[in-house]
Amino acid sequence: MNKIRIGIIGGTGYTGVELLRLLANHPHAELVCITSRGEEGTHVASLFPSLRGHYDLTFEDPARANLAKCNLVFCATPNGVAMQHAPDLLDAGVKVVDLSADFRIDDVNVWEDWYGMKHVCPERISEAVYGLPEVNRDEIKTAMLVANPGCYPTAVQLGFLPLVEHGLVDVSSLIADAKSGVSGAGRKAAVGTALCEVGDSFKAYSASGHRHLPEIKQGLQLLTDQAVGLVFTPHLLPMIRGIHGTLYGKLTGRALKMTESELLQVFRDRFELEPFVDIMPLGSHPDTRSVRGSNHCRIAIHRPQGGDTVVVLVVEDNLVKGAAGQAIQNMNLMCGLSETDGINNVAIVP
Amino acid sequence: MNKIRIGIIGGTGYTGVELLRLLANHPHAELVCITSRGEEGTHVASLFPSLRGHYDLTFEDPARANLAKCNLVFCATPNGVAMQHAPDLLDAGVKVVDLSADFRIDDVNVWEDWYGMKHVCPERISEAVYGLPEVNRDEIKTAMLVANPGCYPTAVQLGFLPLVEHGLVDVSSLIADAKSGVSGAGRKAAVGTALCEVGDSFKAYSASGHRHLPEIKQGLQLLTDQAVGLVFTPHLLPMIRGIHGTLYGKLTGRALKMTESELLQVFRDRFELEPFVDIMPLGSHPDTRSVRGSNHCRIAIHRPQGGDTVVVLVVEDNLVKGAAGQAIQNMNLMCGLSETDGINNVAIVP
Amino acid sequence: MNKIRIGIIGGTGYTGVELLRLLANHPHAELVCITSRGEEGTHVASLFPSLRGHYDLTFEDPARANLAKCNLVFCATPNGVAMQHAPDLLDAGVKVVDLSADFRIDDVNVWEDWYGMKHVCPERISEAVYGLPEVNRDEIKTAMLVANPGCYPTAVQLGFLPLVEHGLVDVSSLIADAKSGVSGAGRKAAVGTALCEVGDSFKAYSASGHRHLPEIKQGLQLLTDQAVGLVFTPHLLPMIRGIHGTLYGKLTGRALKMTESELLQVFRDRFELEPFVDIMPLGSHPDTRSVRGSNHCRIAIHRPQGGDTVVVLVVEDNLVKGAAGQAIQNMNLMCGLSETDGINNVAIVP
Amino acid sequence: MNKIRIGIIGGTGYTGVELLRLLANHPHAELVCITSRGEEGTHVASLFPSLRGHYDLTFEDPARANLAKCNLVFCATPNGVAMQHAPDLLDAGVKVVDLSADFRIDDVNVWEDWYGMKHVCPERISEAVYGLPEVNRDEIKTAMLVANPGCYPTAVQLGFLPLVEHGLVDVSSLIADAKSGVSGAGRKAAVGTALCEVGDSFKAYSASGHRHLPEIKQGLQLLTDQAVGLVFTPHLLPMIRGIHGTLYGKLTGRALKMTESELLQVFRDRFELEPFVDIMPLGSHPDTRSVRGSNHCRIAIHRPQGGDTVVVLVVEDNLVKGAAGQAIQNMNLMCGLSETDGINNVAIVP
Repeated sequence: MNKIRIGIIGGTGYTGVELLRLLANHPHAELVCITSRGEEGTHVASLFPSLRGHYDLTFEDPARANLAKCNLVFCATPNGVAMQHAPDLLDAGVKVVDLSADFRIDDVNVWEDWYGMKHVCPERISEAVYGLPEVNRDEIKTAMLVANPGCYPTAVQLGFLPLVEHGLVDVSSLIADAKSGVSGAGRKAAVGTALCEVGDSFKAYSASGHRHLPEIKQGLQLLTDQAVGLVFTPHLLPMIRGIHGTLYGKLTGRALKMTESELLQVFRDRFELEPFVDIMPLGSHPDTRSVRGSNHCRIAIHRPQGGDTVVVLVVEDNLVKGAAGQAIQNMNLMCGLSETDGINNVAIVP
Repeated sequence: MNKIRIGIIGGTGYTGVELLRLLANHPHAELVCITSRGEEGTHVASLFPSLRGHYDLTFEDPARANLAKCNLVFCATPNGVAMQHAPDLLDAGVKVVDLSADFRIDDVNVWEDWYGMKHVCPERISEAVYGLPEVNRDEIKTAMLVANPGCYPTAVQLGFLPLVEHGLVDVSSLIADAKSGVSGAGRKAAVGTALCEVGDSFKAYSASGHRHLPEIKQGLQLLTDQAVGLVFTPHLLPMIRGIHGTLYGKLTGRALKMTESELLQVFRDRFELEPFVDIMPLGSHPDTRSVRGSNHCRIAIHRPQGGDTVVVLVVEDNLVKGAAGQAIQNMNLMCGLSETDGINNVAIVP
Repeated sequence: MNKIRIGIIGGTGYTGVELLRLLANHPHAELVCITSRGEEGTHVASLFPSLRGHYDLTFEDPARANLAKCNLVFCATPNGVAMQHAPDLLDAGVKVVDLSADFRIDDVNVWEDWYGMKHVCPERISEAVYGLPEVNRDEIKTAMLVANPGCYPTAVQLGFLPLVEHGLVDVSSLIADAKSGVSGAGRKAAVGTALCEVGDSFKAYSASGHRHLPEIKQGLQLLTDQAVGLVFTPHLLPMIRGIHGTLYGKLTGRALKMTESELLQVFRDRFELEPFVDIMPLGSHPDTRSVRGSNHCRIAIHRPQGGDTVVVLVVEDNLVKGAAGQAIQNMNLMCGLSETDGINNVAIVP
Repeated sequence: MNKIRIGIIGGTGYTGVELLRLLANHPHAELVCITSRGEEGTHVASLFPSLRGHYDLTFEDPARANLAKCNLVFCATPNGVAMQHAPDLLDAGVKVVDLSADFRIDDVNVWEDWYGMKHVCPERISEAVYGLPEVNRDEIKTAMLVANPGCYPTAVQLGFLPLVEHGLVDVSSLIADAKSGVSGAGRKAAVGTALCEVGDSFKAYSASGHRHLPEIKQGLQLLTDQAVGLVFTPHLLPMIRGIHGTLYGKLTGRALKMTESELLQVFRDRFELEPFVDIMPLGSHPDTRSVRGSNHCRIAIHRPQGGDTVVVLVVEDNLVKGAAGQAIQNMNLMCGLSETDGINNVAIVP
C-alpha cells in the first residue's frame, strides 16, 4: 500500500512537534512537506533535536510550498491562519485537518466575538466536520475538512457526554473545573509561561470566560433539547502535559435513584467500543501521567456521600488526545486506515 | 518583656519544621523544648540543615521532656497523639495549640467515624476553641486549648464565609474544588508521595469523601440556619506548597441582582480589618506562589457571563496559613501579643 | 515468524513498567509471564493504569511461575535476586538479561565489597557478557546471560569511550560529574525520594563513593593499558527521567594539537554506525528531554578556551538506554532480531 | 535611629522583587524610590501581588525620579545600565550597590570583550569595591560604589577560597561544574526559559565560555601567585532558585598528606567568623533547598577514595547570597549596620 502523503502547515509549535513525533512511527503515513514562515530553510531536527535521525526535511515557506501534492494537510497554526489556506487545499482535493479553532464554531458571529477577528471563509464552516470521533465517527470518515477539537473541549465533552445524552443531569447548571499543563499555551516567548512564573505554583485563569466555552457548549447542546448552562474554569498546572477535568452535574429524574455502579455502567456502555476512552473501575482517580504521551482519555465517576451531585474525573494528554493524536485519529478515519494506526503507544510512566 | 516559652511536640514533620522556621525570627517567643519519639537525641539542625545556626536544641523523648515549663505547647503530631498530651498540659496551666484534628470536631461520634479511632478525652473537646481568627478571634484570646484548623478547611471557609454569612448563596449545593501541594500529605516514607509518582502529574483523591469535609461543613453550618450541603473534591498538585480553592455557589435572592463589584464589596467589608486576608481587585486570579511562605490568604471572585454562579478563588500556603503560621497567629492572640508578630514576612516570589 | 516468549522477574519497579511499555509495541516479542513476590494475583494494569488495554496478565509468584517456557527472561529485580534465578534459567536453556548489578563486575570480591552481600553463583559471572552493544555487540549476539549496564555507567562509558580508545586523554585523572533524575533511585517508599524532599532542589550524593564507580572503571580499563583514575560525583535532579554526564578529560599527546572539530570527528567516526548514539554538531548542548522515553544517547563535546581540557556532554534516559531500552536492544541482538525493533520511537518533547 | 533611605533602579526583575521582599522586613532601611522605564506609574504590588500590603509605591521613570534623596541606591538593571547612572549618583554623595556586572571586572578590555559593549565610565571601575564580604569586608565598609558579585562567582569563589589561599590545590587546573535554577536567567519573555522548554529537563549551556568565567578567575587570581586555570561549565536546573557548585581541585604539596578532616578544618578556620558561610560536617551533601530564600552559603568537602582530588560542594540561593541578599549584606556594611540585619531569616523547607 502506498503511504499517505502528509503535509503540515506551521510545524514549529508543540502540536507540530507532537505530530512529527507520532507520524515518525506511523505505518501508513509519510510526511512530505512542512512549512513555517519564521523557520524557512531550518532543518526540522535543528529546531527539535529529539527528531534527529527520524526526519530529513527542512521547513519551507508556506507561500512557495507545494502542498497540493499531499493527500492530507494538518494545519497546526495559530487561530486565523488555517482559514486562509483551507479553501485552496480543499479545491485542490487535499483533505484538511485543522488543529486550530477556525472551523470549530458553527455560528460565525460567535466565533468572531470570541476570537476577535473576521472569518475569511465563513461559507466553508458548514463543510467542516467537528472531529470528535466518539460523536461524529461516520461523518469524519467522509469529510474533506475536519475541525479538530480543542484540548479542554475534548476532555469536558467526553466526560459529560453519557450524562447529557441520557438526560441524567440538569444541563442548565453544569460545572467544569479544568486544569491544564502549560503546553496548552503553546510555544512562544512570553513572561507568563516562564518556568519561574508558573513553576511550583497554581492558579485559575480566564475564570470570567475562556474561548473554549462556546465550543464545549455547542457540543453539549447538540446532545439535548434543554438549554445548556455551563461554568467553565480553566487552571494552569505547574507541569508540561496533561489535562484533568473535574466535572460536576446535578442528577435529575431517574438518575437520582441510580446507584454509583449504575451510573458507571452508563459510561461503560457508551464507550464500550471506543479504542481511546477508558472507563475506570469504581473508586478510581485517574492521574494525568497515566495518559502522558498517549491518545487515551480515562474517566472515573464518583457520587460523593450518595448525594445528588455526580463528579466525573477525566484525564487526557492535551497534546495527544487533545490535539495531535486526535488529529491523526481523524486522519486515519478520513483515509480509511485503522483508527488506532500509529497512535496506540503506551503512556510514559513514570 | 520576657519571651514566651514554647514547646513543640512532634517536631519532625513539615508543620514542625515550619513552626521552627517562623519561630526563629519571632521577637517574643523562644523555643525551649521539642520532642520526638523517633529522633530523641538528634540535633534539630541535623534533621533540617536549613536550621543550622538558628537553633541549638535536640529532640527529647516526649515521655521525659518537661513540657510543663512552657507557657504554650504546639502539638504538631499525627492525629490521635495530641489528645493524649493535652489534658496534662492544660491541667499544668500550659496553653495548647493543636495542629492536628483531635479537637476540631464538636461531635465526637463524627470525629471517631472519620478518623477511625476512639477519642481518649471527649470531655475536653468542648473546651477547645476552633482557631480560625477571622471567625473566633475573641474566643481564641482567652482560650487555653485551640484546635488549629486544617489546611483545606481554612481556605474553603474563608472563601465561602462572606457569602454564607450574608445568605447570598444556596448553602445546600456548595462545591469546593480544592488543589493542594504534596506537603499537605506530611513527611513520611510512602510510594504515593514520591517525586516519580506525583511529579509532573495531577489527580483528584478522596473524591468520595475526605476527612476535612465534616470540619468545613461544621464551620459553615455555624454561619447559617439553612442545612449546608457541600461537595468537596481535593486534588494533588505536582508542587510542594500551596492550596488553591475554586469555590462554586449558586447566588440566591437579592444576590442575583448584585453586580460582581457589589459582591466583591461584601468580601472587602467582611475582611477589611483582617491582617492576613487579602481581597484582590476585580478580574484577578491569585496564584499560590503569591503566598508561598507567607501567612496570607488571597481571594478573588468572578461571576462568569453574569450568570447565577459565583466563583471564588482562594489561595493560601498550606503549611503557613493552613498550619504553622495560623498556629502562631493563634499563639499571638492567646498570649496577648500583636497578631502579626513573627509572621508578617513577604511571600517568596519567584 | 513466531514471537519470542518473554518473561519478567520483578516487574513492579520503574524498569519493570518501562519494559512493559516498550514491549507492548514490540513487533516480535510477547510477554508471557511476569512475577512479583509482593503483588501476586494483582493485574499488571491495576498497578500501572497506563497499561490498561495493553496487557491482560497478572503478577505470578516467582516460586510458582513457569519461566522455563520463556525464550528470554528479564530480571528487573533489586541487586542480589537475579543471581538466585539465573542458574536455573540458564540450565533450562532460557536466555537471561539481568538489569541489576549481579553480573556486571568481573571480580567477585570487588562486587561483594560494594554491594555488601555474598555472591551465590560467582562461577557464572564469567559467562555473563557486559551488555553495552557499542562495545560488545558480537559477544552479546551469542550470549546466554547478559549483564545489562547501569544507568550512569552507560552514559559515562559512551562519553569517554572514543577518547580512551584513542589515547587522547590522561586516563589517570578522569572526572565524571553526573546528574540523574529521581527514577534512578527506583520505586519504593522512602522519605528521601519524596517530592517534598527532592523537588525544587538539587544536591550531590555518594560523593565519596558510588556503586557505579567500579563498573565504570572496569569498562574503561578494558580500553587502555594505562591505569584508569576516575572521580565520579552523582547528583540528584528534581525531575523524573534523564541522566546528564559532564565529563572532563585532560588532553594528552597528539590530542593537544587537535582542533575541536578533529576531536568531534573522532566521536563521529567511532559511533557512525551506531543506531542509538547521536553525535551533535559543534557547539551543541544536548538536553535530557531530547531523549526522554527514547533509547538514544546524545553526545556533544567542547574544548573551552582552546585549553587542554575536553568537556563531553552526554545525555540518556536512565530508564531506556540506561535500563529497559538497552535491555531490549540486547534482547534483539541475542534473538537475531533487528537491533532497533520496538525501541526506535521518538523522544517526548515537550 | 533614622532609617536609611533606599532607592532601586530597575526593580521589575527577579533581583528587584527579591530586594523588595528582603527590605520589607529590614529594621533600618526604608525604600523611598523605585524606577522602571517600562512600568512607570504601575503600583509595585500590581506587578508582584506577593508584595500587596507591604509597599505603597509606584514605579517612577528613571529620568524623572529624584534618586539623589536616597542614601543608597541599588542598581538591579541589565548589564550596561548601571554605568550610566552611577557617576551622577556618586557625585551626589549617594552610595551605590550595582547588582549587574558593570563594575566587576578590573580590566575594561576584558569586560568589553565578554559583555559586547563599550564601557561608558571606565575611570570609575577602579573606585568600585568587589562586594564579596568574605574577602573584602573592610573595603566594603568605606566604599561608595560596590560591585555586587555574580551568582556563580559567589559560590565558586567561596568554595575554592580556602584551598587557593593556602596553596592546597593546583590552581592551573581547577574545574567548576555549576548548576543553577532558571531564575538566574532573569525575568523576560523568552522561549528558552519557558516551563515547557526547561522543565523536567537538564542541560549544560555556554560550555565553551560564560561571562562569569573572567570574574571568577579574577577573584581567584588575587589569592595566589600562580596562574589560575579554570574550566567552568554552567548547567540549567529544572527549578526556580538555587545554585550548586561541584568544584574539583588537584591537591598539591603538603595537601596530599592531609586527611579529609584536616582539609575540612582549613575551611572551618577560614569561615569561622562568617555569618553566612556554613561549613557542613564530614560526609555531608548540602542541598540547594537548605538555603532557599536565605543568605547562607553551605559548603561540604569530599576526598573520594582518598585520591588526589578534592571535591567541594557549595550551595547558595542565586537570588539571595548570589544577588539581592548579598547586596543588602553590602548595604549593611556600607551603612554601619549590623551585617545580618534583615537577612537572617531561615530557608524555606520544604
